[in-house]
Amino acid sequence: MKKERLQKLGDWLNEQNTDAAFISSTENIFYLTNFYTDPHERLMGLFVFKEAEPFFICPGMEVSQARDAGFEGEIIGYADHEDPWEKVKTAIHKRGRQNMKQAAVEKELLPFSRAEEIQKILPDAALVSAEEIMNELRLVKDEKELAVLKQAAELADYGVEIGVQSLKEGVSEMDVLARIEYELKRKGIREMSFSTMVLFGKKSGQPHGNPGLAALKEGDFVLFDMGVVLDGYCSDITRTLAYKSVSSEQRKIYQTVLDAQLQALDASRPGTRIGDLDQIARDVITNAGYGEYFPHRLGHGLGISVHEYPSISHTSNGVLKEGMVYTIEPGIYVPEIGGVRIEDDVCITKDGHETLTKFPKDLQIIQ
Amino acid sequence: MKKERLQKLGDWLNEQNTDAAFISSTENIFYLTNFYTDPHERLMGLFVFKEAEPFFICPGMEVSQARDAGFEGEIIGYADHEDPWEKVKTAIHKRGRQNMKQAAVEKELLPFSRAEEIQKILPDAALVSAEEIMNELRLVKDEKELAVLKQAAELADYGVEIGVQSLKEGVSEMDVLARIEYELKRKGIREMSFSTMVLFGKKSGQPHGNPGLAALKEGDFVLFDMGVVLDGYCSDITRTLAYKSVSSEQRKIYQTVLDAQLQALDASRPGTRIGDLDQIARDVITNAGYGEYFPHRLGHGLGISVHEYPSISHTSNGVLKEGMVYTIEPGIYVPEIGGVRIEDDVCITKDGHETLTKFPKDLQIIQ
Repeated sequence: MKKERLQKLGDWLNEQNTDAAFISSTENIFYLTNFYTDPHERLMGLFVFKEAEPFFICPGMEVSQARDAGFEGEIIGYADHEDPWEKVKTAIHKRGRQNMKQAAVEKELLPFSRAEEIQKILPDAALVSAEEIMNELRLVKDEKELAVLKQAAELADYGVEIGVQSLKEGVSEMDVLARIEYELKRKGIREMSFSTMVLFGKKSGQPHGNPGLAALKEGDFVLFDMGVVLDGYCSDITRTLAYKSVSSEQRKIYQTVLDAQLQALDASRPGTRIGDLDQIARDVITNAGYGEYFPHRLGHGLGISVHEYPSISHTSNGVLKEGMVYTIEPGIYVPEIGGVRIEDDVCITKDGHETLTKFPKDLQIIQ
Repeated sequence: MKKERLQKLGDWLNEQNTDAAFISSTENIFYLTNFYTDPHERLMGLFVFKEAEPFFICPGMEVSQARDAGFEGEIIGYADHEDPWEKVKTAIHKRGRQNMKQAAVEKELLPFSRAEEIQKILPDAALVSAEEIMNELRLVKDEKELAVLKQAAELADYGVEIGVQSLKEGVSEMDVLARIEYELKRKGIREMSFSTMVLFGKKSGQPHGNPGLAALKEGDFVLFDMGVVLDGYCSDITRTLAYKSVSSEQRKIYQTVLDAQLQALDASRPGTRIGDLDQIARDVITNAGYGEYFPHRLGHGLGISVHEYPSISHTSNGVLKEGMVYTIEPGIYVPEIGGVRIEDDVCITKDGHETLTKFPKDLQIIQ
């Protein structure tokens, strides 16, 4: 499978008449080689050529793990006292590719100092962006990826379940957050896909609020937003509940968000313009009078990164395809009342969609 | 205090005849402005000039928080549909600085695409490194920083205490890890300074081992390595204990590491060559016959980043100064037996040092 991905990158180099690509982000290296590690400040990267064999450069202590992960090309290790760029230079010269005219790099991620090193080795090469092709390759998930994403979503459901069970008078946001992550870690999860959110009351009305030590009280909305990283893939779920009682306005806000979410889900099938999903949800919220309280896009792609393509924004002109995975997460945030957001992970199937996160969405009032 | 830091950066620009510095990393922005946020893919940064007023550019929704944090210069916000680089260009032209000859950027951190944008706005400017001066400014901590680092170290001690209390037959590494982070989160800690390590038995012999679901058993070493982020500053502690019983070789390894650690601590005072600390510890370990099992440097600076300057490696030629904070963490890793590492956070005082982490270091055998 990874060979197929490398082949597709090679095809792109041919089409674009680009001589080579240097891929150095943890996520894209994982996608192309199945090797997942963060080398911190040390150089790690994959060089793929239009007309030569690829090579992978990494710290010496990582060589055997890179090999075990399944990369079959040349792997070049280096010790801390060696200059890895000298080894890159040698490997490129050995391939006779030092005079190349165009090379693709991850411009949004590659540090400037490394671009300078590459430019020194390839003085004639224009450096173009490798991001577009990598984003495109990752856009449609294969079966193995979908299986992992489903499992990751199940664990996100479980996290919400633990959170709901932990709600009782006087408990703090951080108490509940700590309990959720505790139970997930005991299942072997080492990393959440982003900083877990548990927000009570008015704080749920801040789309980027920080959990703190404030105590739960009657009438509060409780907003959970979390996900796990499982075998390199992310999940992301949001649920909002009410504690003990709910006002009629809270009920209306909740129902509006739920309607918006369900209608956007309903339109999730191959061929739908991506921007239309956002517009459908936005119209529901605007028609209910809350348009100004929905300040963000409807969702984002999900995979190795917790935010990837496709972006579910009303300006997105692409169309949904089988195998795309993304979130649908409309929200309404009214400062004096609080906020509601409902988010699922969705996978496009042959003729519709499957919702990967399954925690119930009807308004629950915890007693 | 932050004004003083900006002033020092300004002095450096004058000395180096560099016209401006663009500071865009979360850590260095926090150091210079007291504003700590991760804007993810959105542009945020501080422009400081030799001969003009500084300005800060950030997403519109962050403007008021940046102001509240205490930055007194011009703050330029932008909406998602606006091009932030146009605003940067306008601000630079307004200051008449568009023809500058030299600008400093964080070359190791700045993405290549952003360096290209800056180069477009400043076509005549050579881009030089801002890292050296920023690392140097951050090298010596002031009293307020030391107070936070001490508190962060106390919380690291507390984490180890929870870990030790959680040890019992059959418990897993992830169980113990989850319990530690649970109790720290309940105290309001949102972020660990790195991925917490709890390693049992032979796995403690892997300097970069991953905690898993293996069960604790008699004769295991238990290695804890963890730290918290508190108010933007990091702590980092390692302790190793034995469970139920210990062999004579385990005892010898432990005592060797402890001797190495104590001797390096003992040499920690103003004026000591930094590399000598590493050499002192390395000599103790080598003389005991374990030299090949100590594959890493003795320690690293600690502050806003969990790894910063000074690097405590035998090649480091700088000398210790009052206010420097760093770790001392010798280790011996024998694959068939397991590993021992003992790590403290150390602050250089006027005539010696203070150890910020205080959890006991004598060999403890948990019954």
